[in-house]
Amino acid sequence: MAIKFTLHKTCAQTGARLGTLETPHGSIPTPIFMPVGTQATVKTLTPQQVADIGAKIILSNTYHLYLRPGHKLVEKAGGLHKFMQWPGSILTDSGGYQVFSLNELRKISEEGVEFRSHIDGSKHFLSPEKVMEVQNALGADIIMCFDECAPYPAERSYVLPSLERTIRWAKRCHDAHHNTDRQALFGIIQGGMYHDLRARSVEKMLEFDFPGYSIGGLSVGEPKPLMYEILDSTVPLLPIHKPRYLMGVGSPDALVEGVLRGVDMFDCVLPTRVARNGMALTRFGKVVVRNNPYAEDFAPLEDGCDCYTCQRFSRAYLRHLIKADEVLGLVLISLHNLRFLVRLMEQMRQAIKEDRSGDFAKEVLETLGNNKK
Amino acid sequence: MAIKFTLHKTCAQTGARLGTLETPHGSIPTPIFMPVGTQATVKTLTPQQVADIGAKIILSNTYHLYLRPGHKLVEKAGGLHKFMQWPGSILTDSGGYQVFSLNELRKISEEGVEFRSHIDGSKHFLSPEKVMEVQNALGADIIMCFDECAPYPAERSYVLPSLERTIRWAKRCHDAHHNTDRQALFGIIQGGMYHDLRARSVEKMLEFDFPGYSIGGLSVGEPKPLMYEILDSTVPLLPIHKPRYLMGVGSPDALVEGVLRGVDMFDCVLPTRVARNGMALTRFGKVVVRNNPYAEDFAPLEDGCDCYTCQRFSRAYLRHLIKADEVLGLVLISLHNLRFLVRLMEQMRQAIKEDRSGDFAKEVLETLGNNKK
Repeated sequence: MAIKFTLHKTCAQTGARLGTLETPHGSIPTPIFMPVGTQATVKTLTPQQVADIGAKIILSNTYHLYLRPGHKLVEKAGGLHKFMQWPGSILTDSGGYQVFSLNELRKISEEGVEFRSHIDGSKHFLSPEKVMEVQNALGADIIMCFDECAPYPAERSYVLPSLERTIRWAKRCHDAHHNTDRQALFGIIQGGMYHDLRARSVEKMLEFDFPGYSIGGLSVGEPKPLMYEILDSTVPLLPIHKPRYLMGVGSPDALVEGVLRGVDMFDCVLPTRVARNGMALTRFGKVVVRNNPYAEDFAPLEDGCDCYTCQRFSRAYLRHLIKADEVLGLVLISLHNLRFLVRLMEQMRQAIKEDRSGDFAKEVLETLGNNKK
Repeated sequence: MAIKFTLHKTCAQTGARLGTLETPHGSIPTPIFMPVGTQATVKTLTPQQVADIGAKIILSNTYHLYLRPGHKLVEKAGGLHKFMQWPGSILTDSGGYQVFSLNELRKISEEGVEFRSHIDGSKHFLSPEKVMEVQNALGADIIMCFDECAPYPAERSYVLPSLERTIRWAKRCHDAHHNTDRQALFGIIQGGMYHDLRARSVEKMLEFDFPGYSIGGLSVGEPKPLMYEILDSTVPLLPIHKPRYLMGVGSPDALVEGVLRGVDMFDCVLPTRVARNGMALTRFGKVVVRNNPYAEDFAPLEDGCDCYTCQRFSRAYLRHLIKADEVLGLVLISLHNLRFLVRLMEQMRQAIKEDRSGDFAKEVLETLGNNKK
């Protein structure tokens, strides 16, 4: 087996779980937030900086790496870990989310998806088998089945056949996966906002006995309470002793809510994407550091934060960098935003250990909300 | 006195000098290359990364900081060192080079220069007194007199009155400088490509007994042999026990040639500027890593280099980052380029110590040239 998941305990106050996920590239305490490194780089940061913020596992995108630089090149380089010099664990997505997002640029069939590259318009075809070939070449510790992430809103009449196809594709991925000894293939639960379809998805996916399960198709535009309802009905159906990964979710409040419902893993581009707009995530809510009020604010981004940025630089300096279009501004805010989420999960783990995850979550959600008014 | 310069020896083979420059922010071995941090940041790098490559002193630009974020803001922040969190020494230029480069946007008088901001078109006036006020507020360890850097080519009839004014301005700067205990004011030698005017400039500047002397107005478009001729005639006129700073010169060959002629300090935007075009400086010449031949080149940028980039990443990976417009590409190439020049000076210092700077320079210049063919 490529991975080993150990569940240490479930919090006495909530459904929050404390675990350890062992991969060929290290031991990962869960619940965990995974920074996203779309194109074989966590945007603007060196691997050293990513490791220094406490990240143990990052996510990279199959679709992007397939197109550029190409999975065969990465394989020649010795695999993704070596190519990008990331010593920790890596998870790759299936590319499904990206190719389905191409809309008029893609054509779906039972066999797979034909699409045109967003880079140069060239024509490509991804099937479950091809996606496994690509992910096997990249060599991430955890890889994903090729799936369709249904849009929101979507009619039941759209979601059901899409879900059935995703199940058939999961079988094909399962059969085509070559490196079961060193790459763990996760099944992806879909089913849109329909509780019974989610249940059906879980039931069928369990038949393949995947080493872990992802929950896809959430945080796609639906209201957050609806996402939490789906988690409430879906997560309890998943096997207790396998890791659960909520895909593409990473706002601080949703991370906390997900953990309370028994999710172990999260990823999201949010912390690095908003950094590019000069926006910092903090436990007191968002700080848009490019705004005028921060011009002479010599306090750190977030009082009490232990990151490189907050330990050294003022909001006034960060604002100057952003206003002056200096790359270091993105670097420093990205560093803070990622450390904030990684640390939030560290604090969450400590709270679970002490059976107070409910209290801790309440406090975090209140503090986050207070600043939003 | 704000600085103390100790000349340890002059190489038996050449005019190269080995020294130590002590400032309120540390001890700097000379000859030295100073990375440029125009807008209070060495482009794309954290202060930690800049320190890690071995830089001891950086240059920042008075013109840019005066316009944005403003010298008064930097002063409120506790000065430039604290604002940008650079623990080492800082040198600021006078802004003269930048305002004179604005061409039709500026108007020169005996009093100073009226100009329009390149950022928002707002009208400003810099006089020698104002430039000292700005540099005193920024608080760099070494500061510069307000000067005119004559263009190339320039008639003698243009250079002479310009030079005379620069001398009068140096007197005004000298008189207006407030922090002589912690900021060393350097005089700037001008005189275009006219040996006798350079000599006149030195003669007049020496009257003010500045703690150091800059050589300005070179590397402005003239052929390199002409620059070296000017250095050959000018440098020997400067006092032996004061540091000599050749402004804006930083190509590897010009650094070496400058050291051989007795220059102690250099700065240049070249290493960070060319990084943005995916170009690396190496001892074997330039490597334009975005080019096709490097697509599957898994060797480091420069064989034998000890920088973070070369110790870890391949040319293929760097090319991927540059092609994919990833900021990390600029970061990693900037790191290498700066380390290359900082290390070149380390090697030069060692060679001077061992009285073989001529041999070492010959080897470096040959290796650099070999790749240019």
